[in-house]
Amino acid sequence: MYIRKLTSQVILDYGRAEVHTQAGTLRGVISDGTCIFRGVRYAQAQRFHLPEPVTPWEGVKEAITYGNACPEIFTCVPHDQYTVPHYFTVQSEDCQFLNIWTQSIEKGVKKPVMVWFHGGGMMTGSGVEHYAYDGEELSRFGDVVVVTLNHRLNVLGFLDLSAYGEEYRYSGNAGLADLVAALQWIHENIAAFGGDPDNVMLFGQSGGGSKVVSMLQSPRAAGLFHRACLQSGGMRPGTEMTRSLSRRLASYILEYLKIFPEHVKELESIHYDELACAADYAAGRLSREEGRPVMYGPFSDQDFYSGHPLEHGFIEDTRDVPVLCGSVFGEFLNNYASPVGTGSKNSWMEEYKYELLCTEYGEETEKIIEAFRKAYPDKNTADILFMDTDMRQNALAFARQRAEFSQAGVYNFLFTLESPFNGGTVPWHNAEIPYVFHNAEYLEPSFIPGITPAVQDIVSGAWVNFAKTGSPNGSGVPQWDAFGGEENRTMVFDRECRLETDHDKELLELCPARKVDFSKLMGSKK
Amino acid sequence: MYIRKLTSQVILDYGRAEVHTQAGTLRGVISDGTCIFRGVRYAQAQRFHLPEPVTPWEGVKEAITYGNACPEIFTCVPHDQYTVPHYFTVQSEDCQFLNIWTQSIEKGVKKPVMVWFHGGGMMTGSGVEHYAYDGEELSRFGDVVVVTLNHRLNVLGFLDLSAYGEEYRYSGNAGLADLVAALQWIHENIAAFGGDPDNVMLFGQSGGGSKVVSMLQSPRAAGLFHRACLQSGGMRPGTEMTRSLSRRLASYILEYLKIFPEHVKELESIHYDELACAADYAAGRLSREEGRPVMYGPFSDQDFYSGHPLEHGFIEDTRDVPVLCGSVFGEFLNNYASPVGTGSKNSWMEEYKYELLCTEYGEETEKIIEAFRKAYPDKNTADILFMDTDMRQNALAFARQRAEFSQAGVYNFLFTLESPFNGGTVPWHNAEIPYVFHNAEYLEPSFIPGITPAVQDIVSGAWVNFAKTGSPNGSGVPQWDAFGGEENRTMVFDRECRLETDHDKELLELCPARKVDFSKLMGSKK
Repeated sequence: MYIRKLTSQVILDYGRAEVHTQAGTLRGVISDGTCIFRGVRYAQAQRFHLPEPVTPWEGVKEAITYGNACPEIFTCVPHDQYTVPHYFTVQSEDCQFLNIWTQSIEKGVKKPVMVWFHGGGMMTGSGVEHYAYDGEELSRFGDVVVVTLNHRLNVLGFLDLSAYGEEYRYSGNAGLADLVAALQWIHENIAAFGGDPDNVMLFGQSGGGSKVVSMLQSPRAAGLFHRACLQSGGMRPGTEMTRSLSRRLASYILEYLKIFPEHVKELESIHYDELACAADYAAGRLSREEGRPVMYGPFSDQDFYSGHPLEHGFIEDTRDVPVLCGSVFGEFLNNYASPVGTGSKNSWMEEYKYELLCTEYGEETEKIIEAFRKAYPDKNTADILFMDTDMRQNALAFARQRAEFSQAGVYNFLFTLESPFNGGTVPWHNAEIPYVFHNAEYLEPSFIPGITPAVQDIVSGAWVNFAKTGSPNGSGVPQWDAFGGEENRTMVFDRECRLETDHDKELLELCPARKVDFSKLMGSKK
Repeated sequence: MYIRKLTSQVILDYGRAEVHTQAGTLRGVISDGTCIFRGVRYAQAQRFHLPEPVTPWEGVKEAITYGNACPEIFTCVPHDQYTVPHYFTVQSEDCQFLNIWTQSIEKGVKKPVMVWFHGGGMMTGSGVEHYAYDGEELSRFGDVVVVTLNHRLNVLGFLDLSAYGEEYRYSGNAGLADLVAALQWIHENIAAFGGDPDNVMLFGQSGGGSKVVSMLQSPRAAGLFHRACLQSGGMRPGTEMTRSLSRRLASYILEYLKIFPEHVKELESIHYDELACAADYAAGRLSREEGRPVMYGPFSDQDFYSGHPLEHGFIEDTRDVPVLCGSVFGEFLNNYASPVGTGSKNSWMEEYKYELLCTEYGEETEKIIEAFRKAYPDKNTADILFMDTDMRQNALAFARQRAEFSQAGVYNFLFTLESPFNGGTVPWHNAEIPYVFHNAEYLEPSFIPGITPAVQDIVSGAWVNFAKTGSPNGSGVPQWDAFGGEENRTMVFDRECRLETDHDKELLELCPARKVDFSKLMGSKK
C-alpha cells in the first residue's frame, strides 16, 4: 500500500522479482518481502470480440505500474469518498490487466490463490479502485497469492450484437469472457508466482459478487477455480439482463448513431465517447420502456453464463465449490448514505428515536423494537432505521438454496461492526472489504483502536482459511458451522465475533425489505 | 491523508465545519481537528473565455469530495508511480476548484496562507495528483492554511484565438486567468477559513514553479500574494510560448478540424477529445517546424503575464515579494529515471565507477571527482553520474538576478538527501515535495527511519517560516542567510542540513548542463 505512516524502513527493490510467464518475463517490485507485479496483461481484445492470448515478447517487461481500467460511461467522484476512499486510474479499452501480490516466487510452493472481482455493478470500477483492494497486507497475513484485475464493463463488456453477425456471437458477454480469460491465465501462469493453480478462490463484493456468481454458473470457468465468496452482491435473482433486452439496447444504439445494421462494423471504430453517449441514451430509453432501471450486464447464453442460480438452478460443473456469502448490517441504508432524522443517531433521546421509528413502522414499532433487542442486545434501537434487510434476506436465501444443492459447504456471514465515523455509523455497503483485505488499520473510518486488529485477524483469517481448505474454520476463528437444515447459521462479525442461529429471523419477518433510492447515492456533480 | 497505519482514533465529523463564503455556505469535514474543504468552486468558465465569479447559492453545499481536474490531452500512468505516487481524479472542463486545510475556522485568527500550484508543465496534473500534495499534515505542523487547486491546462488553458475575435482576447492565457481568479477568491474568502488575505504565499514545483513565476510577473496578481517559492521549475528563460507561436497552433487546429476562421465558435462546442486530437497534431507539427518541442503554455501578453523575468526583467508590482527557490540533486538525471551502468550504484567497485565516469567525462574525470569530493565529502562519487547541473544553475541564476532586483530577500536551497529506495537513489524531480508538505513519513521511498522526521521538520519548518515572515529563518532551522553579493549561499537539505557558500561552484563549471531525453521519462503504455 502506498500511504501509511511508516515506522521502519520499507525495502523496495526493483531488481530481483523476475518471473517467467508463458508469454515472457516480467519484473515486479519487492516491498518488504512481498513481491508485487502490477499491470500484468492477461489477454488482449478487439472491441466486442473475444479476448485473445497475450502476444509473447522478448526480454524483460516491467510490471510496476497498474494497467488501464475499462472506460466508464460516466465517472464521478462518489459521495462516499470518505467512507470508501477511491482511486481512479487511467481508463482505456485496452484493459485486460491484473495485479499480483505474493510472498514467494519460487516454483512449487503452491500457495492458495485469492482472485478479487471488483464492484461497481457491471458498469464501473477497477481492480485498484478502492484503497482497500490493495493485496499486500492480505498476502502477507495469510501467506496467499492475491490477484486483482480489470476487465471490460458496461457497453464494452455487455452489448449483444449477435443479431448482426456471427463474429459478434459473444459480444453480449465479452466482459465475462475477459474474466474467464483471466482465470485461464492464472491457471497457466500462477505457479510461477508461487500460487497453486488447483486451489483458486474467487471473492468479490457488490457487482464483484455478481461476477463470482457468473463464474459459478459458467461452464467455461469450471475447473479454473475452487472456492467462491460473495460479499453483498450476486445473491438476488430477477434483476438481470436478457438476450432480448441486450439486443434492444444494441438496436437503440445503432438507431441513435444512425448506423444501418449492415454497417454495424462501424461500431467497432467510433470514438468511445460517442459510443458511451449512445449507450447512455439506449439504457435510458429501455429503462423508461421497461419501467425499471436497465443496465448493461451479462445474460444467460448457456455458454459463458447459465443464468442466475436462483432462477435457473445451479450448474453441475461447479457443484463441488464451497461458498462463503453474506452482507453487512447497513448496506445502502446506513445512516451516512441514507440519513433519517437530524444529528448523530447515537445522541438521540429515547422519545425522538421512538417518534422516528413510529413514522417508519407505525403499529409494528413495539414488536420490531423487541425483536431487535433480542437480535442485537448491545445495539442502539435507532439502528433499526439504518438496517438493511433486503441484502440480508437475499444472502440467506442464496445460502439455503446452495446448501440444498451442494454438500461442499456453505457459510453465511453478517458484518455488524459499527464505525466511529461521524459520531457512529452502522457498516455501509463496502465496509467489510478493508477487514477482508486486512487493511482496516489504514482507513480512517474503518479503524477502531484496540478493536480493529483483533476483528480483522478473525475476518481476514476466515477468508484465508476458506481459500486454503474450503472452510473458514481454523485457528483464531470461532467455530463456524456450515449452513444446512432448517436453521440459518450466521457468523456475526462485531466487537465480539460469534456464530448465531436465526438471531434475526423474527426481525426480518417484521421488517420487509426496504427499497433504496439509488439516485440519491450516486456521486454528486459540483 | 487517506491511507496510513493508524494508531489512534481519527475523529471525522461532518456536521460542524461550516463556513460562509461570499457566494454561500460550505460544509467541510473535521479530521483530527483539521478542517478540510474539498472541491470548493472558485470560479466558473466557458471554454476559451475568462473565468467568472461563482454563482451564489442558497442553503449549505457540501465540500467533501475533490473537484474535477482539467482534462489532459493524454493521461498515462507515469513510470515513476513508485517514487512519486500519483492520484488520478475525475477530469472535466469544469475544473475551477480548490481545497483548503485549516486549523481554525474562527474569523480573525488570520493564519498565513500557503497556496500550492501543482506541476505537470502547463499540460497535466491537478491539485491532488500527488499523494504528497495532501495539506493536512502541513496545516497541522505549521498552523497554516493550505490551499491546493485545479485550473485550465494545455489547449484549454493556453490557446491564443485572439486573431479570430475580441471575445477570445485572453484565451491564450486563460489558464493563468484561472490562477488569478483563484487568488482573487482566496483574497475575498480566506479570512472566513482562518486565513490572512494579506499574507499569502505561493509555492509550486516544476510546472508549478513556472506558475509561481507567471504570477510574480502578472500585474493582475499583484497584491494578491506576498511570498513566492519556486521548486525545480520556472527558473529557466527562453523555452516559453509566444503569442505568434500560440496563434500558429490555433491556425493548425482550425486547419486540422476543417473549421473556417469565421466559424471559430465551433471550437467552443466540439467534443474535448476531438479538440485534444487536433491540439496534439498542431503541437507535433509546430515542434517539427521549430525543431524543438513546443507545448501549450502561457506567453507574455503584458496583462496576465509579462514574460519570463530573466528575459523581460522583473516587474515593479511585485518587487517587495521575497523569493525562495531551489532544486534537488538528481532531478531527471537520478539513477532510477536515467540509469547508467548495471546494478545498484552503491554496490559498484571503484574501478567500475571510474570506468563509467571516464566514459562520460573523459580527461576531466579526475578534476570532477576532486571537485565532487570537496562539495560532497560524504557522498558516493558514483553520484556524479546522476547529478543535475542544469536546474541547479538555473536556480542560482534566478536567485542572483532576483537578489539584484529586489531587497525583499532571496533564499536558495538544494535538496540532496539520498533515498534508500532501490538500494540507494539520489533525490529525483519531486523528491523534496513530501518533505515540504511534512508527508515524508507516509511515502515508502521518501522515508528513512531516524532521519526523515528531523529533516522534514527543518524543510517544512523553513517553508512555514517563510510563509509567516518572508524569511525561512526561525526556530529549528539553521541560520539561512539571504542570497546576495558575489557569493552563492545555498541551504543544503540532507541528513545534516547546512548553509553552504559556493560549495559546488567548481563542480558546476566542470560539469556543463546535461540534457535529458524526456521521451524516455514519459509514462509507458502497456
